[in-house]
Amino acid sequence: MRILITGGAGFLGSHLCDVLIGQGHRVLAVDNLVTGRPENIAHLMGDERFSFIKYNVCDYLHVEGPLDAVMHFASPASPQDYLDLPIATLKVGALGTHKALGLAKAKGARFLLASTSEVYGDPLVNPQSESYWGNVNPLSPRGVYDEAKRFAEAMTMAYHRYHGLDTRIVRIFNTFGPRMRPHDGRVVSNFIVQALQGHPLTMFGDGSQTRSFCYVDDLVRGIVALLMIESDTSVAERTDRAEFLTQRTERTRETVHDPVNIGNPRELTVAEIGRLVLKLTESKSAIVQKPLPVDDPKVRRPDIRRAKALLHWEPAIALEDGLQQTIEYFRKIL
Amino acid sequence: MRILITGGAGFLGSHLCDVLIGQGHRVLAVDNLVTGRPENIAHLMGDERFSFIKYNVCDYLHVEGPLDAVMHFASPASPQDYLDLPIATLKVGALGTHKALGLAKAKGARFLLASTSEVYGDPLVNPQSESYWGNVNPLSPRGVYDEAKRFAEAMTMAYHRYHGLDTRIVRIFNTFGPRMRPHDGRVVSNFIVQALQGHPLTMFGDGSQTRSFCYVDDLVRGIVALLMIESDTSVAERTDRAEFLTQRTERTRETVHDPVNIGNPRELTVAEIGRLVLKLTESKSAIVQKPLPVDDPKVRRPDIRRAKALLHWEPAIALEDGLQQTIEYFRKIL
Repeated sequence: MRILITGGAGFLGSHLCDVLIGQGHRVLAVDNLVTGRPENIAHLMGDERFSFIKYNVCDYLHVEGPLDAVMHFASPASPQDYLDLPIATLKVGALGTHKALGLAKAKGARFLLASTSEVYGDPLVNPQSESYWGNVNPLSPRGVYDEAKRFAEAMTMAYHRYHGLDTRIVRIFNTFGPRMRPHDGRVVSNFIVQALQGHPLTMFGDGSQTRSFCYVDDLVRGIVALLMIESDTSVAERTDRAEFLTQRTERTRETVHDPVNIGNPRELTVAEIGRLVLKLTESKSAIVQKPLPVDDPKVRRPDIRRAKALLHWEPAIALEDGLQQTIEYFRKIL
Repeated sequence: MRILITGGAGFLGSHLCDVLIGQGHRVLAVDNLVTGRPENIAHLMGDERFSFIKYNVCDYLHVEGPLDAVMHFASPASPQDYLDLPIATLKVGALGTHKALGLAKAKGARFLLASTSEVYGDPLVNPQSESYWGNVNPLSPRGVYDEAKRFAEAMTMAYHRYHGLDTRIVRIFNTFGPRMRPHDGRVVSNFIVQALQGHPLTMFGDGSQTRSFCYVDDLVRGIVALLMIESDTSVAERTDRAEFLTQRTERTRETVHDPVNIGNPRELTVAEIGRLVLKLTESKSAIVQKPLPVDDPKVRRPDIRRAKALLHWEPAIALEDGLQQTIEYFRKIL
């Protein structure tokens, strides 16, 4: 297959490049390098199956030759990034998704949207299954990312229903691993960098809020499984389209086009993660508290029953092992 | 003032043109006439204070001369319309809002976004105040409109916070009056047209779902009041910006930039509206039931305390009087 990945030089995008190239596919990575980094894909540059274009996916996107899949991973994705770049975040979620969908349609390619657990906002149910509608404040500073991704999902479903495009939506929960940026404000990378540098670990709030962290190799394996699974019959899609246009009956049967949570259901408090990082890095740093940001979700844990049933996927790498790999990485680059 | 109105040939947009021209302002109406209609503004065509451009606001928008305000009202807005035009609805909410904000920024103009009670989705609280985050299914066919408008609000707040643009957001609840289209699928126009033509009134579900209908003159008066009210100090906005960038403290004080509900809090069931239309039209039509559409909200009623306090606005026209005016209109055009 020939696969285009927007955000291909980012944390997740670059790991996707590695795995897909490793499986023998050809990959065209597109990235404007605002939050993506050339060093994430430098090792692929000699490979004839890999190519890279520095490009903003919000602009008109023309690609020579056939494409089998378009994976839309471009977006600022850490709270720090989307607070610094609110308008760019909104644009890449709306305009960028629209351009990427248009490209997939023009090429007859499959489309996969990188969505996020942020669509659930500050959830009122825990764990979150794909059928939960979410609890998002559209007006808060954090809302720019959440609403951009909710919009991107709505646009993706509209292309599926209206144009019959073969689409996939993955809702990505918190992920960690090598190639996270040292200072992007995410809790795992923050803690590791602070521990390795002998600084106090800054914890927002009292640390009782929970997160569920998935190691990047597990996550990418799940995403590739979702990309590769065949959609079933085209009859099903025509029924959807008819239902959609007449809006008369509830759409009940789930298909590969409905969103799939990919993440690790092991839930830890932020304080527990801090203590684990201190232990694994053998750091003597203290943990200090700072005020909790606006609309910081209090809980976040994926219900992964759909991924298990559809993709036979579940995480396989222990948190401690993943953290060890990530600590190695940061030791090397710091 | 010189005011640009996107969707200026639509139901609400054209009434806004009338009121603002009547107050001595100059109005430039922009409309691609997909759901807007030339006859709504035909009577303004000779007025030198009025001009019209047939244009899709999703394309690059260049306007000669100064502008004092940009009001973004372009969008398919009835469920029938946005089910037929899902991608256009998403585009005008995202791309159209972005272009309109860009124009306001370039001209140093005030910006007013026409948002909607649909941002509350199928609300879990009744009535809905502006602080309610909503209960929206991003994936349903109906979600295209809801998510487009939520995105538009997030984009508008981002322009306010990041660029210091003087923005206003009105959340418009169900509205009725002359210039509704006879066949756009909204309940009041449906009922009136069916009653006048002697057909059975089609009611979706058992009619126990409630709606709160505002007569268009009341609504437009509220919107103009929100447009015209002066924003207070620029200090407040700088504080917001600093808070936004550091994301450390909750934003509590409400300003004119926060959304304002405009609608009529008098709540009726759809069945009651049907009976009232039959009485006022002196029609002998029956009421027949059809299945309820997907994700049709069960209740919808505005909490208008904010509009009362900020704008000293509340609806003044009785439902029966408004319906009488609307029935007259449909008698004339049918």
